[in-house]
Amino acid sequence: MSDLTLIKKHYSFGGTTEFYSHQSSEIKSEMKFSVIRPKAALQNPNNKYPAVLWLSGLTCTEENFVAKAGAQRYADQYESFVFCPDTSPRGFDFNGEHDSYDFGSGAGFYLDATERPWDQNYRMQSYLIKDFLKLIGSEFPVDSKAIAISGHSMGGHGALTLGIKYPELFSRVVAFSPIVNPINGPWGQKAFTNYLGQDVENWKKYDACELILEQGYSKKIVIFQGSADEFLEKELLTDNFVKACDKKKVQLDLRICDGFDHSYYFISSYISEIFKNS
Amino acid sequence: MSDLTLIKKHYSFGGTTEFYSHQSSEIKSEMKFSVIRPKAALQNPNNKYPAVLWLSGLTCTEENFVAKAGAQRYADQYESFVFCPDTSPRGFDFNGEHDSYDFGSGAGFYLDATERPWDQNYRMQSYLIKDFLKLIGSEFPVDSKAIAISGHSMGGHGALTLGIKYPELFSRVVAFSPIVNPINGPWGQKAFTNYLGQDVENWKKYDACELILEQGYSKKIVIFQGSADEFLEKELLTDNFVKACDKKKVQLDLRICDGFDHSYYFISSYISEIFKNS
Repeated sequence: MSDLTLIKKHYSFGGTTEFYSHQSSEIKSEMKFSVIRPKAALQNPNNKYPAVLWLSGLTCTEENFVAKAGAQRYADQYESFVFCPDTSPRGFDFNGEHDSYDFGSGAGFYLDATERPWDQNYRMQSYLIKDFLKLIGSEFPVDSKAIAISGHSMGGHGALTLGIKYPELFSRVVAFSPIVNPINGPWGQKAFTNYLGQDVENWKKYDACELILEQGYSKKIVIFQGSADEFLEKELLTDNFVKACDKKKVQLDLRICDGFDHSYYFISSYISEIFKNS
Repeated sequence: MSDLTLIKKHYSFGGTTEFYSHQSSEIKSEMKFSVIRPKAALQNPNNKYPAVLWLSGLTCTEENFVAKAGAQRYADQYESFVFCPDTSPRGFDFNGEHDSYDFGSGAGFYLDATERPWDQNYRMQSYLIKDFLKLIGSEFPVDSKAIAISGHSMGGHGALTLGIKYPELFSRVVAFSPIVNPINGPWGQKAFTNYLGQDVENWKKYDACELILEQGYSKKIVIFQGSADEFLEKELLTDNFVKACDKKKVQLDLRICDGFDHSYYFISSYISEIFKNS
């Protein structure tokens, strides 16, 4: 018995773009997500298809990516689903939860909070790994061995950290403008202090650079990064990930995109790459 | 001496997406617009390129189309500029101007108002035909004989009415989900009453069906219309345009898109068509 509720469905290119809500046991609240269903899956719904789990950045909801990235055309072409969860729990009203763009609602950072009051509901890592992947597998015709993880900025951080920690769950990692070293940037430091407490040791399992140094990674990691990204030097810290991968001999395919910034104009320009296996 | 002010510029695909403001003598205020500059125009800025003038729908600004339609890729492919003006004057505060989504700010209806207080500034038709086309010609490397006019919903109404009235200025007309007969729909009736007064005779020069019946049109008109469009029967009234074109032997290429609705998911699915001459 499905607990999915279809909110709306739009025809898009040869497929559909769909919005759902469901009850999450990890978040203990309703969560929303969007889905791009490719043309092939409408024509042959009994086949299994690859998928991309896309994690969005600060302030985003489940809608930004499907509205702005232009991925539907390529989803048809590569016969792939795309799943876009929301970026934080919703429906709560904790002290300070809705006061800033870089913490609380819209800024879940894809981690499991340990500090009160966040620890009961701000469990985005467990939500994705336990609730959401299970839901994908049970409700959509997806090949569970061909789920790539991707995302932008805070979502790029999520893609890298979850992709590195759960290589058995995600076949590929393709990050756009990721926050690679949040323990050394203001966004990450603010969020981690509030969600995880003062001890920096507890932050490291949510830091892509630290994870690479700690455990390595046996597959290739792809990063698209605009050279004119306004957050590159202070928040993203891409160079630190290059150094960590070098040190641990992890294969990093870093694509510096000359002149591009941090916006969806950048994401849309390269979004076809999330579907490619090479 | 240009009065253009560049607000921001994003690299997008092989070209750029740019936002400007300028002073409009027709509107008597500052107006904003966006531009998609194709890759070819960056590489060979001394050539002349075709262009599409895109008119957006109710509630939109100069940003919606360039953020959501996914046109940049095709602008590169067809080596065409795209220009997206705002949908109304801004910066005023007339009584009732900002109270509803379908009248006043965000809802200029591409006409020249005759009723006070709108008549001094709500002059979107003259703005586009006099100020904006002149600006395109003087500030961008555009072939003035190859400017297509297109748009969505209220902007489809603008594309049809301006395209039909000024065939010497617009080489092609391609409308998406247009309001074809505003004098017979609630949106049009509300706006026209307020902008143009009670006399329906004065409304007819802003009604695509009436313009076809009055003057005909010697070129082909292309319309893309979703069959599941939630505004089709009450507001868009597509059938009335079919009848008018039949009666006046105007060549109408009406593409009914099965299952598509009124949203940008529809627009983006067919947006490549605005660049095609066939």
